[in-house]
Amino acid sequence: MPNTVLNEIINKMLSENKYSTIKDILKEMNIVDAAQMIENMDEESQVKLFRLLPKSLSADVFSYLAPEAQETIVTSITNKEIHALVEEMFIDDAVDFLEEVPANVVTRVLAQTNPETREIINKFLSYPEDSAGSLMTVEMAAFHEDTTVDEAIESLRKTAQDKETIETCFCIDSHRVLVGSLPLRKLIIAKPGTVIKDIMLNSEKLISVKTNDDRETVAEIVRKYDLLAVPVVDNEERLVGIITIDDVIDVIQEENTEDFEKMALLLPSEDEYLKTGVLTLTKNRIIWLLILMVSATFTGKIIEGFESKLAAIAGLTACIPMLMDTGGNAGNQASTLIIRGLALGSIQIKDYLKVLWKEIRVACICGLTLAAANFLRMQILTRFFHSTATTPVIMIVCISMICAVIIAKTIGCSLPIIAKSLHLDPALMAGPMITTIVDAITLLVYFGFATLFISKGLLPM
Amino acid sequence: MPNTVLNEIINKMLSENKYSTIKDILKEMNIVDAAQMIENMDEESQVKLFRLLPKSLSADVFSYLAPEAQETIVTSITNKEIHALVEEMFIDDAVDFLEEVPANVVTRVLAQTNPETREIINKFLSYPEDSAGSLMTVEMAAFHEDTTVDEAIESLRKTAQDKETIETCFCIDSHRVLVGSLPLRKLIIAKPGTVIKDIMLNSEKLISVKTNDDRETVAEIVRKYDLLAVPVVDNEERLVGIITIDDVIDVIQEENTEDFEKMALLLPSEDEYLKTGVLTLTKNRIIWLLILMVSATFTGKIIEGFESKLAAIAGLTACIPMLMDTGGNAGNQASTLIIRGLALGSIQIKDYLKVLWKEIRVACICGLTLAAANFLRMQILTRFFHSTATTPVIMIVCISMICAVIIAKTIGCSLPIIAKSLHLDPALMAGPMITTIVDAITLLVYFGFATLFISKGLLPM
Repeated sequence: MPNTVLNEIINKMLSENKYSTIKDILKEMNIVDAAQMIENMDEESQVKLFRLLPKSLSADVFSYLAPEAQETIVTSITNKEIHALVEEMFIDDAVDFLEEVPANVVTRVLAQTNPETREIINKFLSYPEDSAGSLMTVEMAAFHEDTTVDEAIESLRKTAQDKETIETCFCIDSHRVLVGSLPLRKLIIAKPGTVIKDIMLNSEKLISVKTNDDRETVAEIVRKYDLLAVPVVDNEERLVGIITIDDVIDVIQEENTEDFEKMALLLPSEDEYLKTGVLTLTKNRIIWLLILMVSATFTGKIIEGFESKLAAIAGLTACIPMLMDTGGNAGNQASTLIIRGLALGSIQIKDYLKVLWKEIRVACICGLTLAAANFLRMQILTRFFHSTATTPVIMIVCISMICAVIIAKTIGCSLPIIAKSLHLDPALMAGPMITTIVDAITLLVYFGFATLFISKGLLPM
Repeated sequence: MPNTVLNEIINKMLSENKYSTIKDILKEMNIVDAAQMIENMDEESQVKLFRLLPKSLSADVFSYLAPEAQETIVTSITNKEIHALVEEMFIDDAVDFLEEVPANVVTRVLAQTNPETREIINKFLSYPEDSAGSLMTVEMAAFHEDTTVDEAIESLRKTAQDKETIETCFCIDSHRVLVGSLPLRKLIIAKPGTVIKDIMLNSEKLISVKTNDDRETVAEIVRKYDLLAVPVVDNEERLVGIITIDDVIDVIQEENTEDFEKMALLLPSEDEYLKTGVLTLTKNRIIWLLILMVSATFTGKIIEGFESKLAAIAGLTACIPMLMDTGGNAGNQASTLIIRGLALGSIQIKDYLKVLWKEIRVACICGLTLAAANFLRMQILTRFFHSTATTPVIMIVCISMICAVIIAKTIGCSLPIIAKSLHLDPALMAGPMITTIVDAITLLVYFGFATLFISKGLLPM
């Protein structure tokens, strides 16, 4: 449904005070769509619409709102409404929301929550950002391993409404230590009297993460083992929460975005582009632009040292951009494949020599093909388009091209793996960084061959 | 567990024929880990280990094997074993496997399957690659809307083992038209006599996809609505299958990899780097390298036209790489953010003017900062490091720098959006492409200012 149309209809109804019709529409809407629709309204209407939501849906819809809309609503509703809202929300959603709003809003919200909820929320807020602890929720289905199947199902019947997921239940011993997991389907098909200890997946096959594991590790595990929820344990192996797959998908997309940004040498940001201010955007970009510009001092000095010869030999200067760009592109291709392979785990540090040998062979074929194509191209330009490049210059360009591609691919595949082995982020060793390094080396090679040709008397000055 | 150690242990046991111990170990292993372990064995051991797997796990483990290992095993086992394996596998896994192996293997496998299974598999193989149809599975839990809760649970008890997921059940009418969905948790907590029509999420709130929807659309929907499974319907709205979230996560990662590859101007490939041959890797890279190299003819011609002046004015040539690289990097930053925003849906074509206005402001601040830093840098180089650049040259470089950054950011943010509006892939308008275009324009601007300074008598030749 085109959202703008719906927003217009609702706006019109709001202005005509047709609240009961709006209520009926909201009741029928998917909560994600309802949240999106509310977000697109002005602040006054956002609060009005939130209050028109059926009580059973308001906490869910609120969880899907953007932080700005959440703040608008929370600052406009009564303390009693805040209390009802926070108690109804899942803990991880409440924590996400509180992490985004100003401190005074957090204080007011926490003042309205029950002491137990407040304690849990405060504990969650203290986990490091990007850790499994900050991602997890405590609303899980956990049973003592001695529970019988019918007791478990009976208990689920009563409490399922408050659980974030019951698709996987977890089994603990008397010390709350995680001892097994139990997919709901296994519970359903089991004979009523069975003790769950006998049907659960036991600790050997059980996958879990620790509260301070990085969220990237969590995403990797959920993806590898196709889990719907992964249990989170503390240092004593006690079950403290679960992380559900819908949150993991968001983590995967955020991590990918971060890699894209790092590879373009942007400081990573979690904010959406259109919602980010000009100054923040500038700040995220200027640092690396400055560093790379200053690094270009090297290429400048190299050219300056060769300036008199460049001035004397026609056609030599004109090929500098082509050589540098081709080197940069060739290196960028290699580094992108390696960075992605490292991120997905399909390439390990120990594969370095295999990778290097592969890249050198690829570089030789690419280099030779490019040199041959360039030879043709430059011959055509000289003969038919009055280009000033002489045959010796063309030879120098072609030989340098082969070397540049080999050097670029070697550097492109090596730097990300070296970064990884130094526990740095391989994504920083992408295109722009490779280009800056390859540029300088390519120029040295190019001028080196030119000097050699001159000294052998092959290139008349 | 370090896999190499485990593989050594198992290898030793295989050589000592300790099959029953191996069987016990396999029984205790997570199926994903078991598949990984088998993959790392030589071909003979792969078949042996596959045969030692408990019957209840062998189809699952097989689904997680890489295509090479699957082929090895299928070509070594008996027809009867093939029959048992394929009938036990989920249809979507069987289809994935058949899509990767040679035609003669496909023929042999299909010959061993029941006519009904064969018909379903053949139908799946005919869906276009990357469509919802090719991703879906038919092993879902679907009930007629008039079924009661206890009938549904009873039926699940009997059939859950064969379903890919029962976490979400789907409701159909007498014509198999999809009319609702029902999370298992709702089924569990409902009163026994209730008809499921009365508790299901009805069509208003129901999210579904069509068989020929692109898999990217499917991933976007599952992510947006936090679904565990999305129903797939045909053109008559009849339920034909479901797509589960674990497959969607793989699609998301593959789509991201594809974008990374396209942005580095590589032809996208689904094969892992280490398993791809040198010739394929070369083929995926050489086309764009050639195209971009030939495009560099423009920069070459621009420099040639200015060659005599470059030769006469000291310091002008030396700044070409720095100007070009800075322009390229600035453009790359903008295009990456826009490409990613378009991919995630946070930027739309209609936002173009907003984006452009933002980029121009960011570019002005970045350009001024870079120019100021460069002014200082070049002054220092001239005064203390014998650089040949004179003050007029430094002025020209700084002014060109500001223009280059503004042009680069403008092109960098425009091209991806233009590509999208022409239904081309925005990811192709990334770094290397932007660099090639920005290079030529930057040179024109640079030489333009130099010519202006010369004509005004500000730059002595």
